[in-house]
Amino acid sequence: MKGGLVNESGAVLLSERRPTPRAEGPEAVVAAISDFISHLADSGDGAPAGVGLAVPGLVTETAAVYAANLGWDHVPASDFTTLDIPVMLGHDVRTGGMAESILGAGKGLTDFLFLPIGTGIAGASIINGEAYGGSSGWAGEIGHTPVFPDGEQCVCGQLGCLETYASAASVGRRYSQRAGVEGVKAEEVVSSDDPIAIEVWDEAVEALSLALATYTLLLDPSVIVLGGGLAEAGPALFDPVRTRLVKRLVWRDAPPLIPAALGVDAGMLGAALLGWRAAGRPELGPGWTVDVRSAPVVS
Amino acid sequence: MKGGLVNESGAVLLSERRPTPRAEGPEAVVAAISDFISHLADSGDGAPAGVGLAVPGLVTETAAVYAANLGWDHVPASDFTTLDIPVMLGHDVRTGGMAESILGAGKGLTDFLFLPIGTGIAGASIINGEAYGGSSGWAGEIGHTPVFPDGEQCVCGQLGCLETYASAASVGRRYSQRAGVEGVKAEEVVSSDDPIAIEVWDEAVEALSLALATYTLLLDPSVIVLGGGLAEAGPALFDPVRTRLVKRLVWRDAPPLIPAALGVDAGMLGAALLGWRAAGRPELGPGWTVDVRSAPVVS
Repeated sequence: MKGGLVNESGAVLLSERRPTPRAEGPEAVVAAISDFISHLADSGDGAPAGVGLAVPGLVTETAAVYAANLGWDHVPASDFTTLDIPVMLGHDVRTGGMAESILGAGKGLTDFLFLPIGTGIAGASIINGEAYGGSSGWAGEIGHTPVFPDGEQCVCGQLGCLETYASAASVGRRYSQRAGVEGVKAEEVVSSDDPIAIEVWDEAVEALSLALATYTLLLDPSVIVLGGGLAEAGPALFDPVRTRLVKRLVWRDAPPLIPAALGVDAGMLGAALLGWRAAGRPELGPGWTVDVRSAPVVS
Repeated sequence: MKGGLVNESGAVLLSERRPTPRAEGPEAVVAAISDFISHLADSGDGAPAGVGLAVPGLVTETAAVYAANLGWDHVPASDFTTLDIPVMLGHDVRTGGMAESILGAGKGLTDFLFLPIGTGIAGASIINGEAYGGSSGWAGEIGHTPVFPDGEQCVCGQLGCLETYASAASVGRRYSQRAGVEGVKAEEVVSSDDPIAIEVWDEAVEALSLALATYTLLLDPSVIVLGGGLAEAGPALFDPVRTRLVKRLVWRDAPPLIPAALGVDAGMLGAALLGWRAAGRPELGPGWTVDVRSAPVVS
């Protein structure tokens, strides 16, 4: 897990990482977060005004309602810190999407898709300027949409999910299985000219372009912001996905594909925005100049 | 085209149909609409307060920006009537969705999908209580999402579109082609136990369940409201689509599938709501009791 101190001007005063003690159970993770927050608070010059937390699963501003991976079941926001300051929770991907929307690649845009591609794939739909959670908080599961109806079974149990073809983990796994070698990473597959690597990458690109075509037709985003580890592949990802997306969309333009601007800091910066909202300063953010990557290199 | 007079209590005082003189060109259609509006206005007891129009294509409240089928290119709302009263335009499917949201099957719900299945297929995403148009007005094209990536070519030029398998027109056409007979209608295919009919209907159901699974995973609707001519098939449509949708969604619940409540009047009632908005009465609608079908027979 990542944490930091962000002041009201958006300066990241401190940024640290700690392991998540998942194996020790749900309460241990909550306690570790609480310790981490106390440590960060003690490390600053003054007293923090609020805490923002980006967490996985089903989440409201005031509770981590459900998280399968962590075993959480209705953990109130106040359980995450012993400090007597306001706390606001947000969904991890949507919080990152909000940060990209206010500070990053989507700055000034009200309607777009933020799609980080890492170990898994989930998206944040920015709709009318806000990250949209759906009727019950489960929106954004683009990684489990059935891009190939009779495709491979995903670890989630469904057939032909985008994630099982196109996540970084899946690209590495699928190559390793077909080539009969262990532990090949996605970035090696992307840059290889081995025919098996080309085939696996081609299937990932096809799966992504199908999911993005569907998203575009349903929601008409102004841009699609690709992030996460796989987006580091740059043109090797963006160029073929763009080509296929344009080809799929015969009668309408494809939205530009642009890289995320905040990288691994999207979640932490989004959490900082939540913390300032919790502290009664919802106006903070748009005026921040954060230290992001320079202008998108691929458009 | 359908038109009517709806008073401030939601009573439909008059409802008429006229042919659309599409073959005579874009201006003739605008003129025919204007004549129709004048006729309706003259038929009432008093002077109308406003005009609402549900039109296809790309549309804003103040202009019919683009409609391929009608040849419209930036037609201002004021061109549609010679009466000196305010006019508001809306997108046809989204206006119907708004009517279902305020008066019909989605009454009281803020986040759902309205999917009329007729000659074509397009949807209205109701998001935070409003029909969502996307970044540029082109959202809702679920009928052209690629449910079968290597599927049949749609008349739109794309491959494997939902509409080319599951619209009422496509179900009839696909059966007629395979069976070597002319002009069979969708309702005949649905109710037939001919093996070719069963196969064609099965493919339509599969296409629909795939599109609805994807929609559910992306947008987490509280319900899915099915309307249009094909929804008249009742359990023959709802039961198999629900079964397949539940099966596709392994780790989350499927939203209830419910029939639209306003039938062919959805567009006209939505246009009436627009007309009252144009007239400065946006509060009208939620209190109306419209003469809709009784409670959903299939849930």
